[in-house]
Formats: sequence, C-alpha cells, structure tokens
Amino acid sequence: MAYFESTYRVSYGDTDQMGVVYYANYLELFERSRTEMLRESGLPYRKMEEMGLILPVREAHCDYLASAEYDDLLTLRSYVAEAKGATLKIATEIYRDKQLLVKGYVVLVCVNRETRKVIRIPDYVKAKCDELKFEE
Amino acid sequence: MAYFESTYRVSYGDTDQMGVVYYANYLELFERSRTEMLRESGLPYRKMEEMGLILPVREAHCDYLASAEYDDLLTLRSYVAEAKGATLKIATEIYRDKQLLVKGYVVLVCVNRETRKVIRIPDYVKAKCDELKFEE
Amino acid sequence: MAYFESTYRVSYGDTDQMGVVYYANYLELFERSRTEMLRESGLPYRKMEEMGLILPVREAHCDYLASAEYDDLLTLRSYVAEAKGATLKIATEIYRDKQLLVKGYVVLVCVNRETRKVIRIPDYVKAKCDELKFEE
Amino acid sequence: MAYFESTYRVSYGDTDQMGVVYYANYLELFERSRTEMLRESGLPYRKMEEMGLILPVREAHCDYLASAEYDDLLTLRSYVAEAKGATLKIATEIYRDKQLLVKGYVVLVCVNRETRKVIRIPDYVKAKCDELKFEE
Repeated sequence: MAYFESTYRVSYGDTDQMGVVYYANYLELFERSRTEMLRESGLPYRKMEEMGLILPVREAHCDYLASAEYDDLLTLRSYVAEAKGATLKIATEIYRDKQLLVKGYVVLVCVNRETRKVIRIPDYVKAKCDELKFEE
Repeated sequence: MAYFESTYRVSYGDTDQMGVVYYANYLELFERSRTEMLRESGLPYRKMEEMGLILPVREAHCDYLASAEYDDLLTLRSYVAEAKGATLKIATEIYRDKQLLVKGYVVLVCVNRETRKVIRIPDYVKAKCDELKFEE
Repeated sequence: MAYFESTYRVSYGDTDQMGVVYYANYLELFERSRTEMLRESGLPYRKMEEMGLILPVREAHCDYLASAEYDDLLTLRSYVAEAKGATLKIATEIYRDKQLLVKGYVVLVCVNRETRKVIRIPDYVKAKCDELKFEE
Repeated sequence: MAYFESTYRVSYGDTDQMGVVYYANYLELFERSRTEMLRESGLPYRKMEEMGLILPVREAHCDYLASAEYDDLLTLRSYVAEAKGATLKIATEIYRDKQLLVKGYVVLVCVNRETRKVIRIPDYVKAKCDELKFEE
C-alpha cells in the first residue's frame, strides 16, 4: 500500500569514463533503497540478520532508461512487489527530480542463517511485507 | 558459433559480510567477460570507442544459482545471443570448476560517441557478432 | 577555521567477509566527505570541473583505528590542512557517534582540464581554502 | 629477498569520469597483489584465515605518479618490507610496461580470528616473511 523514498548523492567513484554512473553500481543503490524501506517500516535488515534470517539475492533485473551523473542527488523508491512462499520480490525505481532513470527488481530468498536452508517467509516479515505491498 | 572464456580471481574486496561475492559485483564480471570476448574476437572495446562507437547498457539480468567465495578462481564465459537493429544481447555464465554459479545477460545499444545518438550496429561489428553468435 | 560534517550509511556492499567495511572503501568516503565540504563552502567540485579545473589525487593516507560495520551511520568530517603552490591537502576523519574510526588525508593537485598541466591554485579556490583551513 | 608479480586488466568499472582508474581502486589492487604474493609463497591468505589468523589493515598509503587507463594490462609487484612484533608491512608497486604508476604500502596486524585479539606474528608466517623480505 506504500512505497518508501530515500536519497543518494552520486560520488566520483560511482562514475565511469563514459561520464555516467557505472551500470553495476545501480544494484548497490537498489540495496540501499530496500534497506531504507525495511528500516522505515520498523524491520531493519540488520535486525533480521541478528534474528537469524538472511536474504540472499536469487535474481536481479535492471532497465536503464537514462544516465545518472556525478553529483546528482537521486531519489530511490522501493516497494514489495510480491511476497509468497520463501521469496520476496522488491522493486526499485531511481529518479533524478521527476525523471525515472533506472528501474528494476530483485528476488530475495529467506534463508536460515545457521543452517543455510531455505525457509518460508517468517510471519513477522510477511505481515510487514503485506503493509509494504504496492499495487502498480 | 563460439563462446569465449576468461578467468577471474575473487578478491577480498569482492566479498560481503555474508562471506560470498556481493551480488552487484557479478555485473562487473559480466563486463570483464564480454570485454575479453570482444578482444579475443579481434574487436577490442577500447578500439570501438576510439572509432566513435560506445555501447551503453540498456538492460541487465542476473540469476544467482550458487555463491562464489573469496579466492575462488572463476571461469567467465560469454557469447552473443542476439544482434539486430541497434542492439546487442550478450549472455554470460560464471562457473567455479564445472558448477554454474551465475548466469545472465546484458542488452547493449550502439551509440555514436560524438552525437550520443542511437545508430544501427556498424557492419564491422555485425560481421564479428555473427561469428560470435552461439545457438543455445 | 572550520570543518564540515556529513553523514553516510554503510551499505551491505561496503562490507567484506571480515564483517566490516572493506579498507579501500574508506577512500571513497574521504571523497564524499571533501565533496560535501566543498559544496557547503559554496565551491562545488562539479562546478570547479566545469570551470576547467580538475583535482587528481597525488597521495592518499589512511589510519584504521576501529572498524565500521554494516548499517552504521557514520559522520564524515573534512577540513583543508594545507593549500600552497599547486597542491591542496585535505584531511578527513570518520566517526561513529563520538568514536574516531578512521583518519587520513589526500593531497590533490590543481590541473588544467584542457591542457592537463599542473597549475597554481586559482585565486577563487585559494580564498575559499583559507576559510576552510583548520588548525589542529 | 624476492618480490612477486601478477597482472591485472583494468575494467570499465575501475575507471571514473576523469577517464582513469579511480584512486580508491588501487587499494583493491594492492590487496590482489599481496594475496598473489602470499599464494605463490605457499602461504595463501585463505588458508591463514582457516588456521585462525586474520590480518586487518591498520594503515595504508598510496603515491599516485601516473594514471592507469581502461583496458591497461598492469603489473602488480609486492614484497614484505618489514615483519616484526604483531605487524607486517607490505609494499606494492603498480606498473604499466616499465612505467611505475602507483606505489604504496599497507601495515597489517596479526589478529586471532576467534578472540579478535592482537597476537605476535606466528612462526610459520614469520619464516615465510623473512623469505619474502626485499631490501630496497
């Protein structure tokens, strides 16, 4: 029902010799964005790890529509696109002002930190995800 | 008709606190892999840029099947999956020994370096791509 | 006479398998910190580049006193330690709460963007640097 | 009495918008270089970690003499500059052909992986380091 926004300032190190943000670095921005979403929802990822849950990425996808440049102040927006079984699909969009530059998603898998086995989404996470769900 | 392989040693800096290679870093390995493919085909990307052609990424996709770890010696394999109009689709697979860890692709767009306009794949690139094409 | 502070949230991608921020990544934080210092002083680095001045790094030094961890909210503090001839020495300190984790400096050289020749610090930069100078 | 060399191909992701390798990335090359030195000496760092020894960095220093560019094939050379008490100082030099581009060092501290306490250099490491020592 909701999405969350955070901001990110592009550093010199984020750019490549084409003069724009290097394409792999957007996946790190995706991670920043979903981390902020989880934190603001009251379920920080750091805490989930402490509670024994890790969320490795099974799949990532990125569509590049326009380039971010050095020193741009970007807006990162994430929401839960799907949460069922053992997997969470989290979508992220990256904007400069009102312009959508990059969009994509990751599919995360719930894994028990000790046993490294795949598990169903824990109830306390599922409940939160249903709140974070966003109908496109 | 052919694919190309190169190798990559995982550095400490590639890992994250889960003890495995951070998911965004595989996209940099994809870039390394396709760069080696182009070089070995006699068409180094550095030379393409000097000839006025740049190849920004329009789309990237990654499926994570298993984790690479610190100090692993990975095999990177790339081939041209499609070349038509203004776009090239290049697939990459990452192996440790015979195990496939990560696979995915990028879609690149041919752009004139000066005008920054999208152009059709130049003939000298198209001919090379047809050689590099690989039927799955 | 003054120093400037900004904040930075440690991402998952910043960490390595020791569970702490990878040592090379602090140099990117140094860059973020001095960029914010310059921006807040009214002399954004992006604008300096547009005016034809680039500031490549000639020397960098880092002392690691304690480790930053995932999700830490760090405070970055920079000041001009020296500005004479063609070089600027900018010191940076990284804190978590009141604890100093990392400190170091970079020496930057003023270079004409077109000719790539070393030049004296331009007057408009020198004046700003004298304001930013901080006696330890 | 000896130094070790390895090679590294500069990727697109290593560069920044100045068209050269971003300054922080050389520290990752330093790590690659000393890892190869340790491996070739018969003492791989991965094995040291498995034996319960970690080597966090206490200090790093880098002098930038000239720039590495995209697609350059660099030569990385490392040697043990000092090994006493609990610390190892390892020097690294980065060359393109015969030209020295960057040189520097790191100071590493021997730490027990379990207790996280600083310890003296273990004998099996000390013996190896004395072999790797290089009088400048």
